[in-house]
Amino acid sequence: MRGVIMHSAGDVRVEERDEPTILEPTDAIIRLSASCICGSDLWPYRGAEPVDHTPMGHEYVGVVTEVGDAVRNVKVGDFVVGSFFASDNTCEICRAGYQTHCVHRQPGAATGAQSEYCRIPLADGTLVATPGHPDPELIPSLLAASDVLGTGWFAAVAAEAGPGKTVAVVGDGAVGLLGILAAKELGAERIIAMSRHADRQALAREFGATDIVEERGDAGVAAIKALTNGLGAHSVIEAVGTQESMMQAIRATRPGGHVGYVGVSHDVSLDGLDLFFSGVHLHGGPAPVRRFLPELIQLIWDRKIDPGKVFDLSLPLEEAAEGYRAMDERRAIKVLLTIG
Amino acid sequence: MRGVIMHSAGDVRVEERDEPTILEPTDAIIRLSASCICGSDLWPYRGAEPVDHTPMGHEYVGVVTEVGDAVRNVKVGDFVVGSFFASDNTCEICRAGYQTHCVHRQPGAATGAQSEYCRIPLADGTLVATPGHPDPELIPSLLAASDVLGTGWFAAVAAEAGPGKTVAVVGDGAVGLLGILAAKELGAERIIAMSRHADRQALAREFGATDIVEERGDAGVAAIKALTNGLGAHSVIEAVGTQESMMQAIRATRPGGHVGYVGVSHDVSLDGLDLFFSGVHLHGGPAPVRRFLPELIQLIWDRKIDPGKVFDLSLPLEEAAEGYRAMDERRAIKVLLTIG
Repeated sequence: MRGVIMHSAGDVRVEERDEPTILEPTDAIIRLSASCICGSDLWPYRGAEPVDHTPMGHEYVGVVTEVGDAVRNVKVGDFVVGSFFASDNTCEICRAGYQTHCVHRQPGAATGAQSEYCRIPLADGTLVATPGHPDPELIPSLLAASDVLGTGWFAAVAAEAGPGKTVAVVGDGAVGLLGILAAKELGAERIIAMSRHADRQALAREFGATDIVEERGDAGVAAIKALTNGLGAHSVIEAVGTQESMMQAIRATRPGGHVGYVGVSHDVSLDGLDLFFSGVHLHGGPAPVRRFLPELIQLIWDRKIDPGKVFDLSLPLEEAAEGYRAMDERRAIKVLLTIG
Repeated sequence: MRGVIMHSAGDVRVEERDEPTILEPTDAIIRLSASCICGSDLWPYRGAEPVDHTPMGHEYVGVVTEVGDAVRNVKVGDFVVGSFFASDNTCEICRAGYQTHCVHRQPGAATGAQSEYCRIPLADGTLVATPGHPDPELIPSLLAASDVLGTGWFAAVAAEAGPGKTVAVVGDGAVGLLGILAAKELGAERIIAMSRHADRQALAREFGATDIVEERGDAGVAAIKALTNGLGAHSVIEAVGTQESMMQAIRATRPGGHVGYVGVSHDVSLDGLDLFFSGVHLHGGPAPVRRFLPELIQLIWDRKIDPGKVFDLSLPLEEAAEGYRAMDERRAIKVLLTIG
């Protein structure tokens, strides 16, 4: 089969690879319909994380082609969506809705999802079958559910976005934009997108943003306060993961308000006294996408949401290297890879 | 009148002072029945915070002797309890339950509470009258409500202590001990006190602790995990405010669990990536004691709780200097000062 291998920083190739096989009785093999490139794939691409001939990709939708003897919840022929973490969905942590911290957690796309086939561990807990085989037009949205939608949704839930709330969103990448969509679906009254890119502002408005703030840092915080009677937003979604964005999120939140943070924190350090006197609630981390998958799939299936719009470039798997370049150079928000 | 002045670090004197007077129409003057010495008073006492002939004390109960023209909710003769922060209790932040972040907040005991009389600003929002004049035996508990009980209660609420939950408490000072009492009242199933002092362990058990962990740091975290199927506690109260205690609290909490922190964070710095992958909820800061006062006063009035037990030394106001020494030398958990 064909699949993406990152040989070293900046060196992405599509190569012939061995097809994955069932290793554990709880495994499933899927034939991917589509995959995509994640913002987090750019860390090794840019040399900021180690990489050495690594199979890439962790977002996936596709059709089950084989299951291990212990698999009960999905069967060959099912169209499935799964999360980037595999989870048993039965342990105490999973039952509390924190599948990314499952006591048996492991990478969801064990053999790399930017490829024709992939092995998915703990298939019963990890995969959710769609009501039937989807129309092709639904594929991008279902793929978004696998990571960026689920992550933006978790951020909005962690920030307690809801009726009567003003929600600010720090970060205008795919996750931030889908955090806006989630806040809208959760009933937020006002949604402030922090973005300085016209194309992303347009998508933010399409997803439900009512206001745009272009300023960042101190000026960004001041702009949010000016829009909220000097108090700050009730809910702030942090979808970047830098020191500046994290502090921007905390300081833009009113005392007693909620910060939902999902940007992977790189070199972030929070001063205890600043946090203490902020009076905010802080919750986040790797999003337990699995918790939300049934609900998100249904919303997509019923055409109530269209998160697939975050994919602004679609390329065949064979052109994955160009996809990485486009995201690295910020020519694309998020790249979908069509397969087969 | 007589009142405590801290001349400089370690130099506490009871001196003749001018009686406070109404400055704003929203002020009230109270004659104190009792006051106490706070753990936070030890910071300037030990030279860790600046102090220069400063009137001391911020915890108070007493009888209203005079009110400004605009005061409506309390009247001369009322027995009242208030918080260490004055708040209007009408702004949007107060209405959300965060009175310590009131848009008009200011010190509650404006002229110092370790004295015979004290001026209380924003009396309508700050003071809560008891159902009548209390029996003397209730005074210590009502005084505890003014700060340490309200703070421990907020920590337990922030940690989402409740039925079915295992709650761990880091810190065995007055606030930590009353966090145990709060967790018990809120219905927690299991309460683990982290303490290595026999007298405090005894009081912890009296307040509702079901387990004691004497270890700290890594060993303390391991002990909590051993008691919780390796998962960590659902809820952890942090009532110290050091780097070690904060990390102990975060690491002793299961993913998706809640840390309620009320120890004033001195030199604490949280690593973003550690926090991200912990998956915990973090909430705390200066406790909005005012939110809980009506409920806490009623519980005390009905003799359902006896938080006054945290006072293990009672001295007349004139002997305040000995009270400071006793707390500084850890001979007392918390010192009550009788007045008049």
